[in-house]
Amino acid sequence: MSQNTAKSNTVGAYENLENRFRRWSALRDAAGMLHWDMSAMMPEGGHSARAEQLAALGVVSHQLLTEPKTGELLQAAHEEAKGLDPWQRANLHEMRRVHVHATALNSDLVEAMSKAATSCEAVWRQARPAGDFAMVKPHLEAIIRLVREAAQAKAEKLGLSPYEALMDEYEPGSRTADIDAVFADYAAFLPDFLGAVLERQAKAPAPIEPKGPFPVEKQKALGERVMKTIGFDFDHGRLDTSLHPFCGGVPDDVRITTRYAEDQVTSALMGIIHETGHAMYERGLPSQWRLQPVGQARGMALHESQSLLVEMQASRSLDFCTFLSPLLNETFPGNEAAFAPDNLRRLYSRVEPGFIRVDADEVTYPAHVILRYRLEQALVKGDLQVGDIPAAWNEGMKSLLGIKPPSDREGCLQDIHWFDGAVGYFPCYSLGAMTAAQLYAAACEADPRIPAAIARGDFAPLMAWLRPNVHERGSSLTTAEIVTAATGRPLDVEVFKAHLQRRYLPD
Amino acid sequence: MSQNTAKSNTVGAYENLENRFRRWSALRDAAGMLHWDMSAMMPEGGHSARAEQLAALGVVSHQLLTEPKTGELLQAAHEEAKGLDPWQRANLHEMRRVHVHATALNSDLVEAMSKAATSCEAVWRQARPAGDFAMVKPHLEAIIRLVREAAQAKAEKLGLSPYEALMDEYEPGSRTADIDAVFADYAAFLPDFLGAVLERQAKAPAPIEPKGPFPVEKQKALGERVMKTIGFDFDHGRLDTSLHPFCGGVPDDVRITTRYAEDQVTSALMGIIHETGHAMYERGLPSQWRLQPVGQARGMALHESQSLLVEMQASRSLDFCTFLSPLLNETFPGNEAAFAPDNLRRLYSRVEPGFIRVDADEVTYPAHVILRYRLEQALVKGDLQVGDIPAAWNEGMKSLLGIKPPSDREGCLQDIHWFDGAVGYFPCYSLGAMTAAQLYAAACEADPRIPAAIARGDFAPLMAWLRPNVHERGSSLTTAEIVTAATGRPLDVEVFKAHLQRRYLPD
Repeated sequence: MSQNTAKSNTVGAYENLENRFRRWSALRDAAGMLHWDMSAMMPEGGHSARAEQLAALGVVSHQLLTEPKTGELLQAAHEEAKGLDPWQRANLHEMRRVHVHATALNSDLVEAMSKAATSCEAVWRQARPAGDFAMVKPHLEAIIRLVREAAQAKAEKLGLSPYEALMDEYEPGSRTADIDAVFADYAAFLPDFLGAVLERQAKAPAPIEPKGPFPVEKQKALGERVMKTIGFDFDHGRLDTSLHPFCGGVPDDVRITTRYAEDQVTSALMGIIHETGHAMYERGLPSQWRLQPVGQARGMALHESQSLLVEMQASRSLDFCTFLSPLLNETFPGNEAAFAPDNLRRLYSRVEPGFIRVDADEVTYPAHVILRYRLEQALVKGDLQVGDIPAAWNEGMKSLLGIKPPSDREGCLQDIHWFDGAVGYFPCYSLGAMTAAQLYAAACEADPRIPAAIARGDFAPLMAWLRPNVHERGSSLTTAEIVTAATGRPLDVEVFKAHLQRRYLPD
Repeated sequence: MSQNTAKSNTVGAYENLENRFRRWSALRDAAGMLHWDMSAMMPEGGHSARAEQLAALGVVSHQLLTEPKTGELLQAAHEEAKGLDPWQRANLHEMRRVHVHATALNSDLVEAMSKAATSCEAVWRQARPAGDFAMVKPHLEAIIRLVREAAQAKAEKLGLSPYEALMDEYEPGSRTADIDAVFADYAAFLPDFLGAVLERQAKAPAPIEPKGPFPVEKQKALGERVMKTIGFDFDHGRLDTSLHPFCGGVPDDVRITTRYAEDQVTSALMGIIHETGHAMYERGLPSQWRLQPVGQARGMALHESQSLLVEMQASRSLDFCTFLSPLLNETFPGNEAAFAPDNLRRLYSRVEPGFIRVDADEVTYPAHVILRYRLEQALVKGDLQVGDIPAAWNEGMKSLLGIKPPSDREGCLQDIHWFDGAVGYFPCYSLGAMTAAQLYAAACEADPRIPAAIARGDFAPLMAWLRPNVHERGSSLTTAEIVTAATGRPLDVEVFKAHLQRRYLPD
């Protein structure tokens, strides 16, 4: 009898898991669409009803993963692995990873985290504008205590260090030894390089700023035209407005958002281009693996590499500015000098050390990330206490960028991440930027016509390279494997530095 | 031991059920929001991904109802009923009703119905424009076979006749004996009344039609202004565009839609007013019972009574036209004669027998419903075979309205309902219209200032009466009980007839 039961569990366990994870993914996708709606469409008064909907979806999809049957099927599927093809095996591997993350934490801890994050975030929304770290300190202490506990629990299950176990949820396979080396290299490179860039920039006249007003409807129409140029398919997606731009939805229905200001045109447009890069990745994921873990985006660092490749590498170039210039002139006549290709390029590659991460240029951005990465590691280890964050922050800014925030508002209170319980995410931004440089260089080496095509508004050659080399990989390989297969070597900070050298200090 | 288990099951069974149904409602609400998005926002290519999301939501919410634990808790809660207050008892009653509907059909039948409806509807979309009933006949036969089976299964569980068991899902508590009497009365009243109305109408000059174009943006702005006038709260809802106007979303986030034509302004505006009536009902449901069965709208007939009360009773009146006239003139200058209050009233109360239900005026509309009600009852009983529908339809139209459809396109193929498996819904439309007349008459009797207030664009007195008398009842009483409590007697077709007499044949 027990023999028979074991056997019948084994038969088709993998197929059974595919069905189970298909439902799980569809529920997560439903939540994703509702998140998009919440940011782009929902009236203020809809919040509590939406919270109930998202909570219910969270509970039922979590149950689907954690109920004993899922664990039994994963066990049973292990014995079928020999009969599976490589994608199925990779899918099974991803199912296990998802399952470990879902089951590593007991439900009391999950609930405590969720409650602590909700109340800490609410206090942070008061504390930030007031620059009052003391106000939010006890709440952040509660968060960090729970984060440490969660990191420990996941570390044991995953065989990683606690901080790596946290990173694994955002960018699976990332290791602190690799990141430490990359970031140390960049931190050493930055001061002299930044000095030289600023010196050179100061010698040239400032670029001409275009003068508005730039009506929102026209900005939107131009944005949609540029999205189509990049390859965005409006049969499978939309562009809308939200306070914080993002890429949401699902691969077959990608919803990107931006925000507009009537007196500014270049930044909203570049924001649209950035999100379109994310969208092209989602849309290009392997369609035959929709709703399976192996068919999903690999991780947040690789995701960010795709938005930054399209934005920073492809579109802040003189090539793209050459294409964009006549479009801008046609849409907003009267700014011909500001919209000249070389002036656009200079507007789009201005370097200026500042306090705020989200406003940073690509040269100084990694400094903001390196600071946060070092601090959050120390927080998880227990080497840094919450009360010591402001001092450590300001000291880090001084040593990395040579500037000191006038208050915690422009310092350690600026980002929502920690106050919302997200620790281990920050490195993704800069790993993405560096990966973008390496992938773009490899793409242009494989097909040297790419830059000239972009100057004509033709992104097809670039996408033709990205699709098989990145997008269609899904989660079948690790990020390191994808980068190595696509570029011939693992992440190499030298390529990013060479890109900066070419763009900011050309001979 | 078994004693203890029974006890622990009994303790808090009702509270346990509230939690369970809260989650179930939140999942249904999530599906409702995704349905709205599908109609109002989603790009074409999003269909199959959305179908997966909705299917997953359908499965998990159905499982929540049908798993043995829910039945056990309902059983156990029965013994707690004495300790519950009247709303809790009504809630428990509604939980049982929902549970019976969910568990009455085995999953094979549910799946067969869903598949049959999908393929029948697809064929119907071809057959309707071609007027080719034979094309869709075998598919409709399959549907009706399954509907009979489902009706039988539900009838046994609910202790109703098979047709009543179908109606119970849309308008709980409706009984054919009552409806038969009401409809027979109206069918007898109609021919002479209609003749007199048409004769009187023919004697007067035709009303003046306003001339467009009426830009969509201006129509939308006017629609939103009128919605606010009625009391729609844009902090808790939106107006958008879809092919088929509807009211979706949830009580705290009501999403209504309409469609516009640039050459027409009166009909889209009245469509918005109709959906606003639905929205006011949803929004007015008892907020302390959100996400509980007793907190939901009572049924589709009562829902339709709320849209038709605001549209047909309140807004197609000279009172409302008096308020609307200057707004229309301000928004669309140059149509002063057409927008004069009395001309507007005449445009909004034109009577004309026609073939198409959705285009019908309020006098002839019930004839369309009576026909369908009689035919679908006969279909469920087996007294009418699918192949005989076209002949029976045309005969019915002849006897009820004195006209014969030129083809099945204008006849039995016009509505999606049967071809989509929805049998038992049609009576709701006319029960709603009649209930609307009775509620409006009672409201005006209770507060005679209502019509004059509406003429000033003040719907507050009307809503002040509707809220306690209808909206805030939720599902705590049956529709008949709500109508009786609000108007002093059960549904009485005489009130509707008196309304028609006053509006169409005033002395």
